[in-house]
Amino acid sequence: MNYRVDISYDGSNFFGFQRQLNVRTVQGEVEKVLSKIFNNNIEINASGRTDRGVHAKKQVFNFYSEKKMDVNKLKYALNCLLPKDILVLYVGIVDDNFHSRYSAKKKIYRYVLTRNDVVFERKYKLYVSKKIDISVMNEYSNLIIGKHDFFSFSNKRKTDISTVREVYYIDIFEEADDLIIEICANSFLYNMVRVIVEFLINVGTGKICDVNISDIINSRNRFYTKGVAPSHALYLYDVIY
Amino acid sequence: MNYRVDISYDGSNFFGFQRQLNVRTVQGEVEKVLSKIFNNNIEINASGRTDRGVHAKKQVFNFYSEKKMDVNKLKYALNCLLPKDILVLYVGIVDDNFHSRYSAKKKIYRYVLTRNDVVFERKYKLYVSKKIDISVMNEYSNLIIGKHDFFSFSNKRKTDISTVREVYYIDIFEEADDLIIEICANSFLYNMVRVIVEFLINVGTGKICDVNISDIINSRNRFYTKGVAPSHALYLYDVIY
Repeated sequence: MNYRVDISYDGSNFFGFQRQLNVRTVQGEVEKVLSKIFNNNIEINASGRTDRGVHAKKQVFNFYSEKKMDVNKLKYALNCLLPKDILVLYVGIVDDNFHSRYSAKKKIYRYVLTRNDVVFERKYKLYVSKKIDISVMNEYSNLIIGKHDFFSFSNKRKTDISTVREVYYIDIFEEADDLIIEICANSFLYNMVRVIVEFLINVGTGKICDVNISDIINSRNRFYTKGVAPSHALYLYDVIY
Repeated sequence: MNYRVDISYDGSNFFGFQRQLNVRTVQGEVEKVLSKIFNNNIEINASGRTDRGVHAKKQVFNFYSEKKMDVNKLKYALNCLLPKDILVLYVGIVDDNFHSRYSAKKKIYRYVLTRNDVVFERKYKLYVSKKIDISVMNEYSNLIIGKHDFFSFSNKRKTDISTVREVYYIDIFEEADDLIIEICANSFLYNMVRVIVEFLINVGTGKICDVNISDIINSRNRFYTKGVAPSHALYLYDVIY
């Protein structure tokens, strides 16, 4: 059986998604519980890793087991046994060819800025006290959209594999006191969303101005894209198959 | 000078409001920072304690110091030095007679239930999967409103002082997927809000039915008001002077 599981998690208290020795990770917690339920060592394939502190509104993984279980009972058992900061949204049995990473067509991330410093939201949003010009952010984001070499917009170190990605859209919209940046691409390089977001905040607040996106892309360096937006306001929002 | 300070805090990682030895409390953190700023031992009077895990959208305290400080600078300094889970909303110099506890006329608490289990809100709302009948909750809450002996609706143990309180209103209203219970009274007994909320949830979900509020009040025992709603969904919402 090839099981597909969609989960949501609060990244605040995890050392990222990927299994690591001696630290609490999402993959580690999930595999521990699945191995207990299936009474067998289970390893999962996720749509991708998320960094330490990054949340997921929806992350998808799959795993194989010969044992056939009722999907509703499995969902219920997982939600009983998993810690409070992981929530299972869906469990299904899928085609053997389905692979949560290789079958993914698009991934969507959201970054949440807020103009209102609320103590209960400090773990989930980035408070920006400076005035932000959304029209300037839109001008630049329109130039980032498309198929480019995103090396300058990432923390990718190895250059032996392609750093070309296609950003399908960047939506910047307001919701009450929040400003949400939604980015959709075929896939993302290491830290790519957070580098793009930091750059957009910098142009929106006027810290960076009069730069040329083509020059930045062609330069293949991070002179204008130095910073990385903090992880706690970033959400893996959806994975499209 | 008599300084009044309004703060908001996320109660998740505090052992309640009141200063205690060897554990992290809101009062402890605030007094440590104030004593540093004023270079003198500062003790604060709050409008009341909140239990471990309870949040405050607005808590008020005051303290005395001979040193006169600019209130805006003091607010700024406090927000720089306090931990991320405490936010100062206001600092002012008030009349010497003002006492955040004795001058308080009304206190308002909010309890947040949700029908939608969202992983990011599990520290801030109580998820209720059962169907809740708001009209039944309203029926009972209308009988709780007023001046009564609230001993049966509290965890007060000592009976040598008055357990009569006046509840001015209980508002139960929906906000998106949330159901909010707002309770306003002249003051509250120990655990009184959480006992009332637990009782209202129990009548709303049908766990308790056909009980008589006058009988419960007159009985002065907790047979029908046994439980206590969890602390993580409770907020001290406002203090009215």
